Amino acid sequence: MRIALGVEYDGSHFCGWQSQPGGCGVQDALERALQVLAGHDVRVTAAGRTDTGVHALSQVVHFDTDTERPMTAWVRGVNAHMPGWVRVLWAQHVDARFNARFDAHSRRYQYILVNQAVAPAVLAGKVGWFHLPLDVHAMQQAAEQLLGEHDFSAFRAAECQAKSPVRTLTEASLARQGNSITFSFSANAFLHHQVRNMVGMLVYVGKGKLQANAVQMLLSERDRRLSPPTFAPDGLYLAGVGYDAHWGLPCTTRSVNLSL
Amino acid sequence: MRIALGVEYDGSHFCGWQSQPGGCGVQDALERALQVLAGHDVRVTAAGRTDTGVHALSQVVHFDTDTERPMTAWVRGVNAHMPGWVRVLWAQHVDARFNARFDAHSRRYQYILVNQAVAPAVLAGKVGWFHLPLDVHAMQQAAEQLLGEHDFSAFRAAECQAKSPVRTLTEASLARQGNSITFSFSANAFLHHQVRNMVGMLVYVGKGKLQANAVQMLLSERDRRLSPPTFAPDGLYLAGVGYDAHWGLPCTTRSVNLSL
Repeated sequence: MRIALGVEYDGSHFCGWQSQPGGCGVQDALERALQVLAGHDVRVTAAGRTDTGVHALSQVVHFDTDTERPMTAWVRGVNAHMPGWVRVLWAQHVDARFNARFDAHSRRYQYILVNQAVAPAVLAGKVGWFHLPLDVHAMQQAAEQLLGEHDFSAFRAAECQAKSPVRTLTEASLARQGNSITFSFSANAFLHHQVRNMVGMLVYVGKGKLQANAVQMLLSERDRRLSPPTFAPDGLYLAGVGYDAHWGLPCTTRSVNLSL
Repeated sequence: MRIALGVEYDGSHFCGWQSQPGGCGVQDALERALQVLAGHDVRVTAAGRTDTGVHALSQVVHFDTDTERPMTAWVRGVNAHMPGWVRVLWAQHVDARFNARFDAHSRRYQYILVNQAVAPAVLAGKVGWFHLPLDVHAMQQAAEQLLGEHDFSAFRAAECQAKSPVRTLTEASLARQGNSITFSFSANAFLHHQVRNMVGMLVYVGKGKLQANAVQMLLSERDRRLSPPTFAPDGLYLAGVGYDAHWGLPCTTRSVNLSL
């Protein structure tokens, strides 16, 4: 039988989502715990493979097992075998045709940027930081130009393995609350480092080093070397994954709200 | 000359505010860095001596030095000599009669409690957690009864060194936002463990183990052994310290807003 899980984790304790020989991936921690409960080797497939330092509020994975256990065991039992910085939120039987990666029709990421003179202490590692005042209005104008279907080569890491650089952004917004700026991006899928590269570009716009209307030019040039640098992973959260309702999953979207 | 500092720190990296022989207190980290800048031994006096694991958004301290440096050096220079989980937010010359501890006429603490089935992963150590549904309305009714001047012996740690158990609470409120409940308490001063003991009591009310109107009885019995247990330090923040305006300090109050 196939089981889907919702997973939250603090990416600063891991070398990214993906399994690594040294066992430092989130996937490794989760598979080790699932194997204890299942009594056999388990491989999980995730909706989004987050980088080192990137957090997830609502990662979705699936795995197969013939071991019969109540769904609560796949939550509490698995959590009892993992460090506190990764938690299974829910577990549910799914159709054997469900694939957490290939059936995800959208992903949502949020980025929390603390914009103040002094670096954050309590939220270090949980938020990005920029020390100079940012023009949020100009950043919003630039963000809007990212909406729609584009070739996002300008915001794509050199090591990106996607076949096509074309993605469709359905949300690209930011809002200030106190000293925090929260960016929200939704797309069918994202290229490697795409969100961090878009945040880096928007910070350049915010500090006046790039005009808001330069986004069209960057997109059309399709050259990563012309774009501002990648922003830190610290404030990045995989906040939601979209699936068709007929799969009957619990809520697969959460929101982060961190401000001081 | 006397200098006042605003300080933020993540208490989970320290053995409390106070200086310890092993040097694990926040005070130790701050004094070590100040000594580098000052070129002589420095002792700081703080508004509130927080326990192990308790955070501060706005601790206020003062110290004396004859070393002339621009105020920015007492911020950036000192921060450059401390780990990232403690930051000086501002520095300001103050009257030599100013005392960060004895001139504080009020303190404000906030407690963030995540109320959901599964323990928080991303915010582990930054928030408290309770797994069963809580009746926030009953908790609010109980909190209101804490307002005013009372003998708070029922909420006082055995090792508390205060001369009197009488304190005046001017704020005792809580509000739910999503899965987070934020408690806010203000008083002239607090007894040792008083906030964590009040939160522990309010959680007992919220889960139905204690009636909201039992608070009066607990206060009048003045017996710590009759009260519910102390709650975890993880979600507790020293959020503000109140001083008379004539001292001319920058803002000494901040608010925390953490929810998923």
